[in-house]
Amino acid sequence: MFRFDLLTTDGRARAGFFQTPHGEVPTPVFMPVGTQATVKAVSPRDLHNLGATVILANTYHLYLRPGDERIARLGGLHTFMGWDGPILTDSGGYQVFSLAQRRKIDADGVTFRSHIDGSEHRFTPEKAIAIQENLGADIIVCFDECATPSDYDYNVEALARTHAWAARCKAAHTRGDQTLFGIVQGGVFSDLRESSARFLTGLGFDGYAIGGLSVGETKEQMHGVLEILDGALPADRPRYLMGVGTPQDLVECVARGVDMFDCVLPTRLARNGGALTRTGRLNLRNARFADDPGPLEPGCTCYTCTHFSRAYLRHLTRANEILGHHLLTLHNLHLMLTMAREIRGVILEGRFQEYRANGEWRMANDEWRMTSGEWQPASC
Amino acid sequence: MFRFDLLTTDGRARAGFFQTPHGEVPTPVFMPVGTQATVKAVSPRDLHNLGATVILANTYHLYLRPGDERIARLGGLHTFMGWDGPILTDSGGYQVFSLAQRRKIDADGVTFRSHIDGSEHRFTPEKAIAIQENLGADIIVCFDECATPSDYDYNVEALARTHAWAARCKAAHTRGDQTLFGIVQGGVFSDLRESSARFLTGLGFDGYAIGGLSVGETKEQMHGVLEILDGALPADRPRYLMGVGTPQDLVECVARGVDMFDCVLPTRLARNGGALTRTGRLNLRNARFADDPGPLEPGCTCYTCTHFSRAYLRHLTRANEILGHHLLTLHNLHLMLTMAREIRGVILEGRFQEYRANGEWRMANDEWRMTSGEWQPASC
Repeated sequence: MFRFDLLTTDGRARAGFFQTPHGEVPTPVFMPVGTQATVKAVSPRDLHNLGATVILANTYHLYLRPGDERIARLGGLHTFMGWDGPILTDSGGYQVFSLAQRRKIDADGVTFRSHIDGSEHRFTPEKAIAIQENLGADIIVCFDECATPSDYDYNVEALARTHAWAARCKAAHTRGDQTLFGIVQGGVFSDLRESSARFLTGLGFDGYAIGGLSVGETKEQMHGVLEILDGALPADRPRYLMGVGTPQDLVECVARGVDMFDCVLPTRLARNGGALTRTGRLNLRNARFADDPGPLEPGCTCYTCTHFSRAYLRHLTRANEILGHHLLTLHNLHLMLTMAREIRGVILEGRFQEYRANGEWRMANDEWRMTSGEWQPASC
Repeated sequence: MFRFDLLTTDGRARAGFFQTPHGEVPTPVFMPVGTQATVKAVSPRDLHNLGATVILANTYHLYLRPGDERIARLGGLHTFMGWDGPILTDSGGYQVFSLAQRRKIDADGVTFRSHIDGSEHRFTPEKAIAIQENLGADIIVCFDECATPSDYDYNVEALARTHAWAARCKAAHTRGDQTLFGIVQGGVFSDLRESSARFLTGLGFDGYAIGGLSVGETKEQMHGVLEILDGALPADRPRYLMGVGTPQDLVECVARGVDMFDCVLPTRLARNGGALTRTGRLNLRNARFADDPGPLEPGCTCYTCTHFSRAYLRHLTRANEILGHHLLTLHNLHLMLTMAREIRGVILEGRFQEYRANGEWRMANDEWRMTSGEWQPASC
């Protein structure tokens, strides 16, 4: 039911296919985040139109509201949220450590208070798997502890728990129509990351998530960890870099062997009036857009760029209109999804190194050209 | 460029066509309200898919932000908001009297402070027309004073201003690709309404808006005014009842000769977790929907009802997710737009009286039937 085919590599960059019961996922892939069983400000119909192939949902949030048992009674997450493509749920580990109140960790699990109403709850590896089985995503992940990336002693301690919990998650997992990914931890430390990859590979998973990155370390540290893991993780299993990132991150992390990405950036930024473009971010609150009749990103083929001006998007943003959140979200997701497809294309053509080295991804947009040291629409 | 054809009548109910430079509007029609140059929580693409033929925008709001001159520079409202169908702008009168701060009325116009930043502004009839010419809607309306409906003396005074202003608006209006509607006022008073209709008809407009209703008077009073106006307004011009209303209002006011309707109810209610149905309103915050796998309105063919459960919509509403606002807005607008089309159909078939008398509009939905004194899905 699950099968990863590595089609080709170009340097460390990989192009593949991951089969799931709800459809095939061509990789590299960007996965929009649907924390509360909705990718914020867009509908499943929009996601299909954007070419999204797999989306995320969040175990911690859905456990608290509306409840995983309720979702199970209502037919599972696919039915509940009206998305018939593949879904990945995270383990709730990251949220327990970042959002929950008064958490108390012991060897067996974590006791915490809900960020919504302060009520007390407990997650163990078995509980995290039971919740994810109730939710019914295609891909689920082990319950892990996400430590401060540069604290060696804490990482050693947390990693011991994460590994013990991974074994318990694997033992607890029963649904054959779901696959379980291990999560590599170990902060920015090569030895810990290598030992984590070795330990989890020993347990054996259909895929490996890379946690504990993009949480405050430098890009160089993140890239260093990815290079180590590219050698340490099995080539025939997908690697999923959790919580990353930007258009540039896609290129740079694919270049270091990553297959799957998720990040709230495109959707969160959009709700704050921000647009991602191939040449940088735009803040639509900026007065310089007030009379700008041009599209967000010249040459972009998304619904937003083909129908609305920067001036209009600025107006919607200032007026705090929902349509502004919607249109910026469409554009930002379109960019990330399009770039992932484009990257896959150049890997399959054996041109990825060139694409990356030349900064070709910044100009893939037909109508942009570097002119007198500035990115300009080709027609200028 | 503008032409109203009254195709047929059934009692006082009328079916017609109103031609505008941006397309034909079959009447009776419900016009979604796009106060700030966006129908809240939906895109122009959604509006087209819903079958909206004409939408509203608001002169007061757009004058304040982003500014009517800016919109003119950016190509006018159609280009600015990406809606290529007909648009109607109101005069700003209602908002000046209900929203603005510290307003001061004199014979020449109104001085008021912005509800956004307290800045001082002045609207005169000439200014209201100039703003609406900058905005560039197909249908614009005269600047009027909306008085408390049951205060006779105030209505007499306000009506004198409204009439003088209507003459000045007509004189000030220059754009041939826009048509100007007069606004009948006069509160709940038959003599004032009749004299208002007579005066405005004397000036001569392509259509007549009916203002100052749905502002606190009873349904009986509103219906009474409409019956008087059906006799007093010319049959060969469209009548637009401002700010009305509910599914039942559509039926009851079409029955009294109204052709055009607008109301924020479907969109505003949606953003508060409310759904309109043919058999009443649903509040999605209600716990009884928590495990309800059924659609909002059984038999409804909208995107929301064909893809999502009440349980999911309740979850989105509780979690304050934008998708909840979007999906409820789609449903509510679908209902109002579908009902207006359906009403037109039964008028053309000569069955409107029967449709209304039998409460047929409540069951037009194939899968609802009255069973044991309750509206039930037919399958129950």
